[in-house]
Amino acid sequence: MIEKKVIGAWTEELASKAPVPGGGGASALGGAMGAALGQMVANLTIGKKRYKDVEEEIQLRLSGLEKLQKEFLVLADKDAEVFAPLSKAYGLPADTREQKEEKERIMEERLLAASLVPLEVMEKAMEVLDILEYLAEKGSRMAISDVGVGVQFARAALTGAVMNVYINTKSMKNRERAEELNAKANGLIEAGTRQADEIYEKVQRGLVS
Amino acid sequence: MIEKKVIGAWTEELASKAPVPGGGGASALGGAMGAALGQMVANLTIGKKRYKDVEEEIQLRLSGLEKLQKEFLVLADKDAEVFAPLSKAYGLPADTREQKEEKERIMEERLLAASLVPLEVMEKAMEVLDILEYLAEKGSRMAISDVGVGVQFARAALTGAVMNVYINTKSMKNRERAEELNAKANGLIEAGTRQADEIYEKVQRGLVS
Repeated sequence: MIEKKVIGAWTEELASKAPVPGGGGASALGGAMGAALGQMVANLTIGKKRYKDVEEEIQLRLSGLEKLQKEFLVLADKDAEVFAPLSKAYGLPADTREQKEEKERIMEERLLAASLVPLEVMEKAMEVLDILEYLAEKGSRMAISDVGVGVQFARAALTGAVMNVYINTKSMKNRERAEELNAKANGLIEAGTRQADEIYEKVQRGLVS
Repeated sequence: MIEKKVIGAWTEELASKAPVPGGGGASALGGAMGAALGQMVANLTIGKKRYKDVEEEIQLRLSGLEKLQKEFLVLADKDAEVFAPLSKAYGLPADTREQKEEKERIMEERLLAASLVPLEVMEKAMEVLDILEYLAEKGSRMAISDVGVGVQFARAALTGAVMNVYINTKSMKNRERAEELNAKANGLIEAGTRQADEIYEKVQRGLVS
């Protein structure tokens, strides 16, 4: 479980040639960091007189981010879990027609599973961006820079995770499904990077003016 | 030391209202993750027949990334270390002219220290990008997606760290120095995000074609 790993040991594992953790796990952790930075901003807003009017709304967002942060860490583990069966499937025999068909069926199944995890990371990164957009508007001015950093980590989760969608759809024989998954991922990337860049620029303007 | 922290505990600390870790520490960790992903790609390239011609060059880059990864973790700690003295300086008395002058002098000194740490994170993120650019070209094709994810984390380190440059230069009385630091940071952001986006698009094209 990534949650229990020591940071220095985890980055060393990431750096090693071991297949996991890799880009997928890193992207999920990036999502958790983006959510956590949003939580920090919410926590710095709650209880302050100046933000009393939005306190209830902020509390709702905080609960959402707490849940998302945990879900990202679970997804980092899931990303590692779907890798081994896929890697194993690549090694299945394909000498006879039956073996070949069986291998193909199993491969497709596991490629799909390995695509759905990063897609879920992407969808959750979009949820984080929505909440950060609210916090950029209504959260404590004292913590606005942390909204900006959070946005960048949610963005990295999104643009990082999509790489693992592409790798897995690339090997799929069912091209219709592959293209559907890619189209969904590309839609999230387009909307998410635009939204992230808009929030970030707004935060930046607030800081340098 | 961030290196010794457990991931789940660290993200909880990041989420709390405690001032550190905050966006600065997260950005530095993002840099370490970007470097680690580059190391993974280098490690997956070294020892492969197909990449024998570039092995020595890749080994050099790997050593560079190993050093950078460690430096980012040290910078995450440094980011926390410069915060307390700055926070303390805000509370110094300013009742007499002497006190006011003394407070201003100390504030300036500590604001500068707190700006230089994220600037260093930015500079090191640029170094990671240069190495990732090389790996995108010459590294193992099997690991190309991890170059893409690494680029996104180096980018987040850069665009995240700059927020802490802006916050600290904003409060500086020496506007000439503040503008100099901002100009330096903005130059890095402009060149770095362009470079990151170029490498990423190249990797993406290779994956979806």
